[in-house]
Amino acid sequence: MSLESYMNEVGQKARAASRLLTRATTEQKNKALFAMANALESARPRLKEENAKDIENGKQKGLDEALLDRLELNDARIDGMIEGLKQVATLPDPVGEITDMVYRPSGIQLGKMRVPLGVIGIIYESRPNVTIDAASLCLKSGNATILRGGSEAFYSNQAIAQAVQSGLASAGLPEDAVQVINTVDRAAVGLLITMPDYVDVIVPRGGKGLIERISKDARVPVIKHLDGNCHVYIDDEADLEKAFNIAMNAKTRRYGVCNAMESLLVNARVAKDILPRLADALSEKGVELVGCDLTRAIIEAAPATEDDWYTEYLAPKLSIKVVDDMDDAIAHINQYGSHHSDAIVSQNYSKTRAFMTEVDSSSVMVNASTAFADGFEYGLGAEIGISTDKIHARGPVGLIGLTSQKYVVLGDGHTRDN
Amino acid sequence: MSLESYMNEVGQKARAASRLLTRATTEQKNKALFAMANALESARPRLKEENAKDIENGKQKGLDEALLDRLELNDARIDGMIEGLKQVATLPDPVGEITDMVYRPSGIQLGKMRVPLGVIGIIYESRPNVTIDAASLCLKSGNATILRGGSEAFYSNQAIAQAVQSGLASAGLPEDAVQVINTVDRAAVGLLITMPDYVDVIVPRGGKGLIERISKDARVPVIKHLDGNCHVYIDDEADLEKAFNIAMNAKTRRYGVCNAMESLLVNARVAKDILPRLADALSEKGVELVGCDLTRAIIEAAPATEDDWYTEYLAPKLSIKVVDDMDDAIAHINQYGSHHSDAIVSQNYSKTRAFMTEVDSSSVMVNASTAFADGFEYGLGAEIGISTDKIHARGPVGLIGLTSQKYVVLGDGHTRDN
Repeated sequence: MSLESYMNEVGQKARAASRLLTRATTEQKNKALFAMANALESARPRLKEENAKDIENGKQKGLDEALLDRLELNDARIDGMIEGLKQVATLPDPVGEITDMVYRPSGIQLGKMRVPLGVIGIIYESRPNVTIDAASLCLKSGNATILRGGSEAFYSNQAIAQAVQSGLASAGLPEDAVQVINTVDRAAVGLLITMPDYVDVIVPRGGKGLIERISKDARVPVIKHLDGNCHVYIDDEADLEKAFNIAMNAKTRRYGVCNAMESLLVNARVAKDILPRLADALSEKGVELVGCDLTRAIIEAAPATEDDWYTEYLAPKLSIKVVDDMDDAIAHINQYGSHHSDAIVSQNYSKTRAFMTEVDSSSVMVNASTAFADGFEYGLGAEIGISTDKIHARGPVGLIGLTSQKYVVLGDGHTRDN
Repeated sequence: MSLESYMNEVGQKARAASRLLTRATTEQKNKALFAMANALESARPRLKEENAKDIENGKQKGLDEALLDRLELNDARIDGMIEGLKQVATLPDPVGEITDMVYRPSGIQLGKMRVPLGVIGIIYESRPNVTIDAASLCLKSGNATILRGGSEAFYSNQAIAQAVQSGLASAGLPEDAVQVINTVDRAAVGLLITMPDYVDVIVPRGGKGLIERISKDARVPVIKHLDGNCHVYIDDEADLEKAFNIAMNAKTRRYGVCNAMESLLVNARVAKDILPRLADALSEKGVELVGCDLTRAIIEAAPATEDDWYTEYLAPKLSIKVVDDMDDAIAHINQYGSHHSDAIVSQNYSKTRAFMTEVDSSSVMVNASTAFADGFEYGLGAEIGISTDKIHARGPVGLIGLTSQKYVVLGDGHTRDN
């Protein structure tokens, strides 16, 4: 079979499965999730065997240590997948909820019903545990899923897919509700993102390069998670103790996460009061500092280039800029930021009110660390990513972000006059 | 200036204006809308003069009567635009609303704030009144707008743009908040839909061909309004009096609207009871009938082709199919329909419950006419279109559909531990 016929068949099967999933009860979906967990447990030796093939191939291809590490399925990671499945089973089912039900003047009752998106295509890189994360969230939200993992994890993903499909079958759900592409041919991605008849939305999970490529070529909507170039602005009316704690937490809690602060903006009136203490504490943690001229007049830092202001380091490195006032800070954030998560530290009520309105980011924090931008912290239970888009879903995307709403109209023979 | 530089400049100005609009108060926006209404009133003679140029050019180009009619700006249509502006001014302002504000276990307060999308590009055909509809809805929802009307309405649209911009200026809002492209070069559309840095979403208003072309080439999200191939399914447990009224209303209230019924599905058990009466009444109204073999065994109708089931006639024509049961009807609707608005007529509780869940359309009606699918009937006040997409906005799109939500986090020095 040609790749095109194969992908078309996958698409058709997914669409058919998504129709059947509209009838799946919450109980069935949860049963399937628990059955998948059991199937993974039983398949543990096989998962490790298949994973060993991927690791061996990866070594021969000369993958670096970090990639090989992400690829590995050890017992702890298999435990994590099993635990994840059980957690998703405990989350409330968003599908079918009807809200805003009102009588309209015409006499009809109008409401909004939460419904699955339909078929979701997930494209990800080498981490095989994403297969389970994505499949479980999509299933719980009533969607059929087509998964395309990195070619390095081919054998691991196929083994995981078997466990997933046996779980679906044992709950009486269609096995095609979760399909894992069974070819490493890169052209499969190009086909997957250009089948609007069969795929309703694409969620790419991986580096910025992958996501940009997919967004550029896709013919279906993409829920994007681009970079997190997050800012903390310390206002001249900040409580400097809070400012110190928030800045330290936002930068040093973890370096490789998208909600970490990458740029610190400090009001010129308090720069001398706060920067030396922060610089000492950051240097002690091994954080490299780059800054504007005003910053460098106060603390030791390498000169920041224009590029630095745009950069998500994902590393122990921070750019620092001294700004004239809050408006200056907002303009900087809206220009250089990535519309992910940005914070102000200030005790001035009017300024926090304006910052909250004018900063164009998916999460705006007032006197709180950017580190809170996270599906678990927000109570979503789990997240498939943090959307930096404005359309559809913005910020952490959980089960609700994988659904849509349709209108339902209840009449009793109602017709429209005018 | 090259077209590219021009469009880039338009985009940059729109982005800058959208930043300023985040500070616009509801009062200012309403003041601008009333000022636009006054400016249109004062410009009435000039609007007609400029419109006469378009009409004259259109005649020379040999536009047909229907197009020339849509192009015309007579007093009634100018009155309509003025009335529309005042109506949008009276609608509640969705921007800034914070909902779902809760304390999280970490101690932060988390809520969702409704915010404008940013910059909206509107591409439409020859009706100049769309310029005012679109500009007013986008302004009220806090968005900057770039309007690209049909080249046939060039002079009319430029004259309307002047009135719009004078209204903005008199309310202290940036004139660039509404820009009308000042060239008829078709390449401008191609540029407008491929500027993700400056344009957040595209709303095409026009025929299916226009919308499909734009969706295909766009590099920014598109809120699509494709066809309305709407169905009414008459169940064997329908109240046939209600069924007759609903079917007649859905088909004959107006023929050229997207919420009109284009296909009637009738359960085989009641086909003989309802079809003859319906066929008589429809024929009396001059509705042409095509049907499946079973239909044609009961009433006079031309044979329906496979294409008929897919077709939105927008005309006094109806395709009729006799189906075995509700599942058959649902399968037909999900396969051939356009996910717009579809209705069931049945007194059976369980069936209506299943139909509502399983039909994948933006509006699902139970014992009510598809004619209710409309922004005014749904209480949105006005609509910019009816989305047949699943992502972001589904069904009639009003002010809310032109906004998004961001998370706001209020802390008091909160940092994240784990």
